[in-house]
Amino acid sequence: MEIKRPLIMICNDDGVNARGIAHLTRIAASLGDVVVVAPDSPQSGKSSALTVNAPLMLNTHPDIDGARVYSVNGTPVDCVKIGLHAVLDRKPDLLLSGVNHGSNAAINNIYSGTMGAAMEGCVLGIPSIGFSLLSHSPEADFNPLTPFITDIIKKVLANGLPEGVCLNINFPKQCTPKGLKVVRGAKGHWTEEYRDYTTPHGTPFYWLTGKFHNEEPDNPETDEYWLRQQYATIVPIRPDQTATDMITEINNLFL
Amino acid sequence: MEIKRPLIMICNDDGVNARGIAHLTRIAASLGDVVVVAPDSPQSGKSSALTVNAPLMLNTHPDIDGARVYSVNGTPVDCVKIGLHAVLDRKPDLLLSGVNHGSNAAINNIYSGTMGAAMEGCVLGIPSIGFSLLSHSPEADFNPLTPFITDIIKKVLANGLPEGVCLNINFPKQCTPKGLKVVRGAKGHWTEEYRDYTTPHGTPFYWLTGKFHNEEPDNPETDEYWLRQQYATIVPIRPDQTATDMITEINNLFL
Repeated sequence: MEIKRPLIMICNDDGVNARGIAHLTRIAASLGDVVVVAPDSPQSGKSSALTVNAPLMLNTHPDIDGARVYSVNGTPVDCVKIGLHAVLDRKPDLLLSGVNHGSNAAINNIYSGTMGAAMEGCVLGIPSIGFSLLSHSPEADFNPLTPFITDIIKKVLANGLPEGVCLNINFPKQCTPKGLKVVRGAKGHWTEEYRDYTTPHGTPFYWLTGKFHNEEPDNPETDEYWLRQQYATIVPIRPDQTATDMITEINNLFL
Repeated sequence: MEIKRPLIMICNDDGVNARGIAHLTRIAASLGDVVVVAPDSPQSGKSSALTVNAPLMLNTHPDIDGARVYSVNGTPVDCVKIGLHAVLDRKPDLLLSGVNHGSNAAINNIYSGTMGAAMEGCVLGIPSIGFSLLSHSPEADFNPLTPFITDIIKKVLANGLPEGVCLNINFPKQCTPKGLKVVRGAKGHWTEEYRDYTTPHGTPFYWLTGKFHNEEPDNPETDEYWLRQQYATIVPIRPDQTATDMITEINNLFL
């Protein structure tokens, strides 16, 4: 009897040519049939943005370890949607996004294109995982992540994920993680968000920068705490943001 | 004794010249000091996207009923951040986004630039509300919304909102709402998402369209149900997507 290999779709937000997605694709290709559908240009910070009124096109790229590779001229969410519409002939068993070059821990989840793709998979009923490495270095070493990612993929393929929940997984930089911690995102916000400039013609302009202010740096319930201790962190993410527990309180406000 | 007027910041995703934001600005200008900081171009479907590596600039526009009006060459989230960084000299007492031309009910919240701005305000600790009208018509009549929006602004200015929660408010189209309902977003997903085309040169391309499939059309706990009955709906939204209630279950998966 032939055992069917799982179908795994891979996306990211750094673009189809990023090193992180190539690394993730090589790992996944050893575990299933892989199709990559990723943006043709960097899409960091694109959140769950989608292209509402412009044409989207697919391009093909050389295979990676037997995985078919496509790019789309759009956002990570566009890639997931176009992949399902125009590339795959069935819903994949797993959607992976990343490995992102840079942190998506704590509040970064909200802005992350990597997690935008994972949440889109989740909304469409596909077990979905976003992976990120806390390094923007061009020389970042993805190899220490391999056994962790392999194990996580195997377990999620075997057991699935709870309905409506996907995973935001971050890896500490420049080390072999000491282990995995399932935690929540640290509370915090960005400060000093822009650097101010002036054009040669005297017009001010602004460029995003900023520092993350962690409001609970010593709290072992949070991802930031364990990443600093060189652990990989798994945060369960629910794309549906309805605060059902607040309906009564808000209702009282408007009586 | 001089009573200080509240400071209200207004954003949207349809752009600074949209009719919906002008309507909202005129209402707010009767209740406080208003500053509009909105995108210089349509930004529908931009979610919580932000501009990570390009210069952002402010432009000034004619006042609306005494409200100062600025635009930014970026996303709704960029507008909120730049407004706080470069326009306002203190945190506003209220952030309003909209009135959006089109529904942000149910799952649309995830992709909505209108709600991206409201969620950004919420993350920064500002009571924040997104307003949307279920009509894309250029002749859409915003006047029936005025008493509802006025009342909502007054109540939120007086009482604030629970920490970490903002409001996603939708209005039924072409009618005076029969009342307000505080509910949750309906569960559902989009189907038939793209129309297929071919370029003159034989290359396929795709354009977003789609139908919303409501998985629970008869459920009076949901926004879609009451909007169909011509009620306005208020859905409490928590930008933080961590599924804290799932940590134990996910932990068991990786033991």
